[in-house]
Parts: sequence; structure tokens; C-alpha cells
Amino acid sequence: MTDLSPTPRTRITRLRERGRTEREELLAFLSEGLVAHVAVNAGDHPVALPVAYGVDPDGPDEGGTLYVHGSVGAGWMREAPGSTVCVTVTSVDGLVLARSGFNHSMNYRCAVVIGTARQVESEEERARALDLVVDQIVPGRAATMRPHTRKELAATSVLAVPLREASLKVRAHGVGDEPEDVATGTWAGVLPLRTVAGELEPDPATPGPVPEDVARRAAQLRGDPGQ
Amino acid sequence: MTDLSPTPRTRITRLRERGRTEREELLAFLSEGLVAHVAVNAGDHPVALPVAYGVDPDGPDEGGTLYVHGSVGAGWMREAPGSTVCVTVTSVDGLVLARSGFNHSMNYRCAVVIGTARQVESEEERARALDLVVDQIVPGRAATMRPHTRKELAATSVLAVPLREASLKVRAHGVGDEPEDVATGTWAGVLPLRTVAGELEPDPATPGPVPEDVARRAAQLRGDPGQ
Repeated sequence: MTDLSPTPRTRITRLRERGRTEREELLAFLSEGLVAHVAVNAGDHPVALPVAYGVDPDGPDEGGTLYVHGSVGAGWMREAPGSTVCVTVTSVDGLVLARSGFNHSMNYRCAVVIGTARQVESEEERARALDLVVDQIVPGRAATMRPHTRKELAATSVLAVPLREASLKVRAHGVGDEPEDVATGTWAGVLPLRTVAGELEPDPATPGPVPEDVARRAAQLRGDPGQ
Repeated sequence: MTDLSPTPRTRITRLRERGRTEREELLAFLSEGLVAHVAVNAGDHPVALPVAYGVDPDGPDEGGTLYVHGSVGAGWMREAPGSTVCVTVTSVDGLVLARSGFNHSMNYRCAVVIGTARQVESEEERARALDLVVDQIVPGRAATMRPHTRKELAATSVLAVPLREASLKVRAHGVGDEPEDVATGTWAGVLPLRTVAGELEPDPATPGPVPEDVARRAAQLRGDPGQ
């Protein structure tokens, strides 16, 4: 048990050496992600769907708040409030190409948050949550947008999940082969992976100058030096 | 209802124009993915975890078979057999940077498979499934590996999920803004994203020549022309 995983539900039981215990590391990883998979019970079976998300480390829920949003018409959004959901954010960082099929693996970072989903009722908190979701995509962008309209807020469901119960698991090393496989001289190694941006595709209707926040984000995701 | 989504469980109810109905397109997308999120019921709540996977379009299950594997010690692997699970594969293909927070979106492809998980008992099918998982990471690589040992097969649980009930949802277009927001002249556009490989990191113990299958996969994931 750690501060990060105060209950057995998010305690790492296998490959514990991969578990991280610092809340700051969880928040740093979550701040980098683009998509979460949220798992909810849909009647007699679970469903996992990709969603955009935002994080407020000082949000109103215990441990801080993770927000996901969706249409008020989405079925899983109606099932989730008041039930326990699981929000998982994964980054695949490399292919671990071992000397046996069994020892093939991936380098990855994976955050799992388990908690009771709260439907965000207040229009103010909902607007703030949507801003966090936009800023997750392009930091600083929400402040440059016009305010959300009443109609937009009414069409959007927002769920808040407390960050209290979470885990962060990381594999970030080379191959782990058996000595007898290494002795054969067979090649093995790691192929690092990352998500990168291509060239911006401006909407032809308004080809004007690219906003600074977008240019900065594009450069960062292209991996340009200095970003 | 389509051949791809024969039941309401995987029928797309929102933004139906994003739904694809061709099984070939589902298989093509699944053949590209590196990681799936598998959602299982863990007692009173769902859990979604990232896993490597493999696909056998001609596998023994209805519609073909999707395999995921894990340690026999993993809790979710013990919960899953006989229960309905959801396997989701997502690719984030771009950030859709609109003129309002509300219209921000992502380009993505997302396959959802829902079905009863079957524990693979036969050693032969388990070995074949593990080969498919390795070939998903680097096509052709399984055939270059030594055979799995009895001990390795005994330490590995494999779940088979029928591909019968599935959906494939795709967003692959530009911004969808309100005319009044376009009229303001505000910039908008799409930032395409993809997963790319960096430089191979050979294990220092065996720096010999890189196997052809690995070199080909690395070039493909670097986006080299001709791959």
C-alpha cells in the first residue's frame, strides 16, 4: 500500500518492481497523455472506450479529479454515474524484441485510476472540465477560445473520477532473456516508439497565421529541439 | 445491424456515419495495432488493462479469434474466462483543433470487440496464439524463434475472444465548426499524429547483425519510403 494506491483495488500484485509510488509521477504522466480508455459496466458486461480527458490535481475529489466527457446521448455516459469505473492511460514506448517468443515484451507506462464516477452537475465545473480537456490537447488553448454556450454545455456530459486510488506501472529497460538464450548469440534489442506530429493541416476556410499555442504544440509533438 | 455488428452490444448508436461495416476493414485495422485494452469485470467493478494481442481471422471462434495473453498469476486473467469481456484497439490519428472548445475532437480509429472469453487449454493452440502475438509486434518473427518450452507455456494464460461481435469507428476528416465560428476568421486545423520508431537499441551482449524481419519492421515504423 502506498499513498498512490491506498486500497487493494489499485495495488500492483505482479511485477511489483514496475510500480511507481509517487503521486507527482502519476500526474506528470497523465499530463502527457492524449487518450484514456474508460471502462464501465454496461449491464452484464464491461465496455472500454477511448475518451479525451483532463486532470485537475486540485479538483474537488479526493486526491484530485480526472474528468472525461461525452455526449449526453452516449449510452456508457448514462451507465457510469454513481458506479465504479476504471480509467486507464497507456503509452507504448518500445517493442522489446527478445530471443524467445516468451520474453518478447513492450516498454510502456500505464496509469490505472479506479473510482466512483460523479456526474458533474454544475455548469461552472463542467465548463472548467471542458477547458481542461482542451488544454490537455493543446496546452493554453482553452483561454483563446470563445466561452462555451449554454447549448454546448447542455449537450455535454462530464464525469469526474477521484484520483485517490491509482497505480502507475512502468517498463523502461532492455530485453530480459534467459542466460542460455543469450549464449546462443541470437540478436535482441529494443525498438523505441513515440507519437509524433506530421505537418499541420489548416482548414482552407481560414488559412491565416497559426496560433502560437498550436505552433508550440506542433513543434513539441514533432520533437523539434528546444521544445 | 451489419455482418460486423450482429447484436445491439456492438451497434454504434452515436455518430453512426463514423461506423464501418466491412469485416476486412476491421481485420486490416487490428493487424496494425500494437496494444489492446481489455476490460473485464473484477468483482464489483470493471478494469481495463493494456495487453499485447494477436488475431487469427480463421481461428476456431465464430468470426475468427482475437487472442490476448497474460501471466497465470494475473488477477484479471483468472476473472475473465467464461465471462463477457471487451477488447478495444484505438489509434489516435490526429488532433482536431476547432474554433470552439466544444468542437475540438480527435481523428481516430477504434475497434471494439465484445464476447465471451475462452481460456485456451490446448498447448498447441496456446503456442500458436503466442506466435500470433509475437508476429503482431514484428511480422514474421515467430518463425525465427526457438520453440516455446513447456515451462513457458505453463506460465502463460491465453484468452480467446470471438470476433463475431465487433465495431469499427473512424473519424478521419477536418474540423466541423459552426458557420458563425468560421465567419470570425479564427484559425482551425488538424495536427496529424502517428507512432514512429526511433533508432534500434541492440542488446550489448549480442551486437551482431539485425535480423531482416526486425530491420523491415523498424524501417516501416520509421516511415521510410518503400516500406
